[in-house]
Amino acid sequence: MLSLRGSAALLLPALAALFLPSATHAATRHVWVVAEPQTWNAVPNARDVIHGTTYDATQTTFPTVVFKRYTKDWKRPLRLPYEGRAGAGRIPGPLIRARVGDELRIHFKNRDTLHGTEHSMHFHGVEYEPTSDGIYLPLHDSKGGRVKPGQSFTYKLTAGRGSAGVWPYHDHSISMEESIAGGMYGALSIAGRRERRADREYLVAFAPWHGFQTINGRAFVGNTPVFKSRVGQTVQWDVMAMGDEFHTFHVHGHRWRTDAGTPEDTRGLGPAESFRVRWREDAPGTWLYHCHVETHMAQGMIGLYRVSR
Amino acid sequence: MLSLRGSAALLLPALAALFLPSATHAATRHVWVVAEPQTWNAVPNARDVIHGTTYDATQTTFPTVVFKRYTKDWKRPLRLPYEGRAGAGRIPGPLIRARVGDELRIHFKNRDTLHGTEHSMHFHGVEYEPTSDGIYLPLHDSKGGRVKPGQSFTYKLTAGRGSAGVWPYHDHSISMEESIAGGMYGALSIAGRRERRADREYLVAFAPWHGFQTINGRAFVGNTPVFKSRVGQTVQWDVMAMGDEFHTFHVHGHRWRTDAGTPEDTRGLGPAESFRVRWREDAPGTWLYHCHVETHMAQGMIGLYRVSR
Amino acid sequence: MLSLRGSAALLLPALAALFLPSATHAATRHVWVVAEPQTWNAVPNARDVIHGTTYDATQTTFPTVVFKRYTKDWKRPLRLPYEGRAGAGRIPGPLIRARVGDELRIHFKNRDTLHGTEHSMHFHGVEYEPTSDGIYLPLHDSKGGRVKPGQSFTYKLTAGRGSAGVWPYHDHSISMEESIAGGMYGALSIAGRRERRADREYLVAFAPWHGFQTINGRAFVGNTPVFKSRVGQTVQWDVMAMGDEFHTFHVHGHRWRTDAGTPEDTRGLGPAESFRVRWREDAPGTWLYHCHVETHMAQGMIGLYRVSR
Repeated sequence: MLSLRGSAALLLPALAALFLPSATHAATRHVWVVAEPQTWNAVPNARDVIHGTTYDATQTTFPTVVFKRYTKDWKRPLRLPYEGRAGAGRIPGPLIRARVGDELRIHFKNRDTLHGTEHSMHFHGVEYEPTSDGIYLPLHDSKGGRVKPGQSFTYKLTAGRGSAGVWPYHDHSISMEESIAGGMYGALSIAGRRERRADREYLVAFAPWHGFQTINGRAFVGNTPVFKSRVGQTVQWDVMAMGDEFHTFHVHGHRWRTDAGTPEDTRGLGPAESFRVRWREDAPGTWLYHCHVETHMAQGMIGLYRVSR
Repeated sequence: MLSLRGSAALLLPALAALFLPSATHAATRHVWVVAEPQTWNAVPNARDVIHGTTYDATQTTFPTVVFKRYTKDWKRPLRLPYEGRAGAGRIPGPLIRARVGDELRIHFKNRDTLHGTEHSMHFHGVEYEPTSDGIYLPLHDSKGGRVKPGQSFTYKLTAGRGSAGVWPYHDHSISMEESIAGGMYGALSIAGRRERRADREYLVAFAPWHGFQTINGRAFVGNTPVFKSRVGQTVQWDVMAMGDEFHTFHVHGHRWRTDAGTPEDTRGLGPAESFRVRWREDAPGTWLYHCHVETHMAQGMIGLYRVSR
Repeated sequence: MLSLRGSAALLLPALAALFLPSATHAATRHVWVVAEPQTWNAVPNARDVIHGTTYDATQTTFPTVVFKRYTKDWKRPLRLPYEGRAGAGRIPGPLIRARVGDELRIHFKNRDTLHGTEHSMHFHGVEYEPTSDGIYLPLHDSKGGRVKPGQSFTYKLTAGRGSAGVWPYHDHSISMEESIAGGMYGALSIAGRRERRADREYLVAFAPWHGFQTINGRAFVGNTPVFKSRVGQTVQWDVMAMGDEFHTFHVHGHRWRTDAGTPEDTRGLGPAESFRVRWREDAPGTWLYHCHVETHMAQGMIGLYRVSR
C-alpha cells in the first residue's frame, strides 16, 4: 500500500477550489483517474469472525486492476478526506463528488500492465454526448470506450437537474465483464445545487469477488468498512450494486423513509441500481449493516456501524 | 397439533387490555413467545392440484423449531383471533400487533429440545437499544442474541414515528441460517397512532422449505392460506420474504397504488423486505394470489382469495 | 414472415374508430387475437457483434406458438402502425392500447396446431370478473382458462381508474410454463382518460429464450429493436418482464424520475412487474439500452436507441 498524503495535497489552492464542499456555485471539476494494477485481498484479517472460519491469503488475494485517484496530470496518487479509503488503490474507485450545475472533466489514463487490455469509464446519472459514453461499439467516435494501455481520454460530463443522487460508474469497454468482477467500479455523489451535504457520507458498493460477496471489495466483519458517526450528525448512505445479483440493504436499529414517505429499514437493489438514504443519528451503539440475502451475508456482505454519544 | 382455546384466553381481562384493537392510546404490550419443536408438513393434503402431482408425507414433513405465542409467563399456548393460524405452533410465528407510540416487551423463551442450539429474535422496523438487537456478535452485552435452551430474554422495543407498517422478525443468532430455513420468522404489524385497522389483515410470508416455495410454510393451493373477505370490507395484505430469493407478489383481479400513487398489481421484494397494501373490496369471486416467479409458483407459492358478496 | 398491409387495414372506418389515438371518450374496443404456430429465430443476423460470436440458425431458431393480432372474426393478420412489429406473428404479442374508462373485448382463438394444447390470456392491471381471469383451476366457470385448439373465448375487461399504465398479459392455462417460455406474452398500454399519448412508445419485454436473454424475443444488438426518436419528441418506454429472473432496465445518456420525483437511469423489475417511464428527448446520438445484469447483457439483452436532431 502506498503512503499517501492526501491532506497535504488538499492545501494546494488549485485543488482546494475544486473540492471545497462549501462551494455552491456551478464549477468545472477536474478529476484524474488511473486504471492500474493492484494486488487485492478481500479478507485481510484472514477470517470470518461470525462463523469462525479462517482463510489462507492465497484464497482471498488476487492481482487485479482498479480505478485510482491522482493529482493533476496523473502525477501522484491523491486521497481525499471525504472518501474514506475509496479510490486510493482500493476497491471501489474514487468517490467523485459534484453539485447540480457542475461540469465534470474526468481525465482517465489506462495503465493496465496486468492484462494489457482496453478499458473505459461509463457514468450513470449525468449528461454527456455519445463520445463520452465510454462504450465499445462501432457506433460513433467511441475512442472513450477503447482506451488502450498507455493512452488517456477525458470524459465530459454535466451534472444536470436530474442528476442529484448517487450513481455508479464502471468500465464499459469490451473487457467489462472481467474488469468489473475485478473491481473497476465506483460512485458519483451529486448534491442538489443548494443541498447541504450530510455530516457523514458512507459508500456501500455490493459486488462479488472470487466467490465472496463483498462490500467495497472486502468480506466479513473486521474487513468491510467500519462506518462511524456521533449522535446528532446527519448520515448519508450511498448504496450501489455491480455484477449479476440482487441484494437487500439493511441497517440494524435504524429506519429511513422512501421518497414517497414510507418508512423502511431494508431496500432491494440490482446491478447498477443505486440510492441514497439519510437520517439524523439518534441511536448510539455498535450496529450491523449488511445485505439481507442470507447466503450473501454468510459469504461476507456484512459490516459494522459505530455511533458514539 | 395442539388443541388451542385462544378465544377463551382472550376473555381474561389482563390480556384483553393488551390486544384490544380499539386502543389508540400508547400502551406497553407484553408478548410471550417460545421457540419450540414442531413437526411441520408443508403439503398436508399431499398434492399439487394444479399440476396433478402427489407427494408422500415423508417428502414434505420435517421436524423443526418455530416461534409460538403463549400466555403470560409462557404458561399456555395462546391463539389470537386476528392471527389466523399464525403463531399457534405453525409457520410463521405470531403476528405481533402494535401502534405507533407503543412500547413492546417481547418475552422470549428458548425451548429448542430438537437441535439444542441458541436462538434469538431480531425485529425490523422498531426502535431498540443494541442489547435488544438479538444478534450474536461479541460487540456489546449481546445476551439477547444467544439465548440458550432453557433460558429466556426480554426484548424492549418501541414503535416510533417511523415504525408504521409491516416488518419481519427472525432468529439472528449464530444458528440463523438453519433456523430461518426451518421457519423461525414472523411479522410485526404496526398501525399509525390513529390509523383505523383494516377489516381483514392477511399475512403473506414467502420463504423456501426443503425444496418447496412456501407461503406461511405451506405449498400449493389447498395448503396455503385461503384468505376471505366480503365486498365493502377494507383488506390489508402484509407481505414479507425470508431466505435468499426475490419474489413478485401478485393478486388476480385487483390493483392497488404505491405510496407515490401509481397503480400496480405485482410488486417485487427480496429477503427481509416487506410492505403492506390495502384496498376496499369490490370484486366478488375466487381469486389466486401468488409469487409470479414462474418456478416459485410451480413449487407451491400460490393460494386462494375468496371474496363473497 | 408474412407480408402484412396493416396501414391499409387502418383505413377501414370500423377499425379506425376503435384505435384512433385521439379518441378521449370511453369506448368499447374489440381486439382479435390468435395463438398460432410460428418459427422464431432470436438471432436472425446470426451474431453477437459485441463479443464477435457467431451462431448457427439451428442454435437460435425454434418452432413456437405466439399471440398474433387479426382483423374482425380472425379473418386476416393485422398490423397496427403504433405496434412496431409486435403482434404481427412475432414475440411479444400485440401491444393492446386503451384508455381509462374503456371496455375491452379480447376475442381469443386457439389455433395451436404445434403442441395441440389448451391456452388462455390472463391480463394484468384491468378489471374483470373471475370468468375472464384466464386461469386453469376448477374454481368457477373457467372456460377462459382452458381454450382448446379450434375453440375461442372472449375476455371482458374494463380499464378502470386504477388501470392507467403498462401491464403484461400472458398465457395462464395449464401449459403456461412452456408457452410463456415460448413467447406467449404481450402488453397492455392504458392511457389516462385525458392523457396525451407520447410521440413515441417503445415496448421492452425482457424474457429468456432457449438459453438467450431476449428483448422482444431477440438477442444481441442488430436483432433487438432499434428504437428511434427525434429531439423534442416525448418518448415512453413500456418495460415488462416474464419468466423467473430479475432485471435492471438502463438507458444510456438519459435519466427519468420515479413517481415520487427521484431521478434514476436504472430500474429493477421481476417477473410480471411492469412500468413506464417518459421524457422529452434532448440527447441526439446512438445510445444503448439494456438489462444491466451482466450475464443477461452478455446473453443478448441489449439494443440500440437512435435519436436524430
